[in-house]
Amino acid sequence: MKGLFITFEGTEACGKSTQANLLAERLLAEGHSVTLTREPGGTAISEKIREILLDLNNFVMAPQTELLLFLAARNQHVYELIKPNLANNMIVIADRFSDSTIAYQGVARDIDLKVINYLNDFATYGLKPDLTFLLDIPIEKTKERVLNKKKDRVELESFEFHHKVRKAFLKLAKKEDRIVLLNGTKNIAELKEEIYNIVKKRIKEQ
Amino acid sequence: MKGLFITFEGTEACGKSTQANLLAERLLAEGHSVTLTREPGGTAISEKIREILLDLNNFVMAPQTELLLFLAARNQHVYELIKPNLANNMIVIADRFSDSTIAYQGVARDIDLKVINYLNDFATYGLKPDLTFLLDIPIEKTKERVLNKKKDRVELESFEFHHKVRKAFLKLAKKEDRIVLLNGTKNIAELKEEIYNIVKKRIKEQ
Repeated sequence: MKGLFITFEGTEACGKSTQANLLAERLLAEGHSVTLTREPGGTAISEKIREILLDLNNFVMAPQTELLLFLAARNQHVYELIKPNLANNMIVIADRFSDSTIAYQGVARDIDLKVINYLNDFATYGLKPDLTFLLDIPIEKTKERVLNKKKDRVELESFEFHHKVRKAFLKLAKKEDRIVLLNGTKNIAELKEEIYNIVKKRIKEQ
Repeated sequence: MKGLFITFEGTEACGKSTQANLLAERLLAEGHSVTLTREPGGTAISEKIREILLDLNNFVMAPQTELLLFLAARNQHVYELIKPNLANNMIVIADRFSDSTIAYQGVARDIDLKVINYLNDFATYGLKPDLTFLLDIPIEKTKERVLNKKKDRVELESFEFHHKVRKAFLKLAKKEDRIVLLNGTKNIAELKEEIYNIVKKRIKEQ
């Protein structure tokens, strides 16, 4: 088996971090070599960039600066962690990747998608996930789930913003064969099983 | 008079910060509205990005990450400080700008100049300096001047690296009419006078 790159995507509080964790645990328990990581972050440099991105004091950040910072964090992540681990035949599971940039900075912040695609390609050295799970939940569910949570700079955006992000993700799922659209309102155990079965099938095919 | 955007460029220890300061002081003393700033930096967000860029612990930084971080810092700088101040008819003097990215990340770190130009254009919203002073010193002079200085991540690069940077700047000076090439080994007062006279002439022409 060669390396397998799996990403989890979706709006805030869609359950992707939970499912990414559960999948990693199960694959590890089965003896697979697994790297579980997140964006922005995953390396020391990328985590420092993450701090700048999520800091509430940085409310004056230009949309283009935000984009470039996400991409800088992603580039270091791919360079230092994701690519070497894939080359070592590991399963790399990332909580968010390039699709988030298309949905958040492209569609919701209205930066030209041609620019976004050019920059994503540059920052990832052309690397694309083998498999992406999109956990979709209605915007009312997002409201309900984040109600009592302490929010970061991006989470504090309006619900109109998050609605645009959701629609962008759904559009991407229609376009890209690698994206598996899942109903994020299902219970955790059920989703876990669904995701696991798809991954196992994929591993067997390799 | 409308705003005037002046940049200072050159290799490490070429004297550009000193001359940028002296020019700003003199123009201020004459009653001009002047903003003196530097890259990477110039805004709170950009200064935080600067810390990541110059931190010696970040020696594993990918060249592309470095590029994206410089551009993120520049974008916020242009968005929050340079553009608004130029719109207010100020003279903005910047210690480094886009030319440094061409010389350092493009030529010396060998990233495709087409990519660099595309990204510089995106990060600056197409803004170019009206006037750029390039202070050129031989590489032996650089060695001499930085010998006893505590160096940051970029300054610690090899002299071969800094030699490439110097050559790249000289090539740019030949190509761009806005760049004034100056002999950085001249004494400070003489250079100060030379720079001041060029700026005064330019202000009168506007």
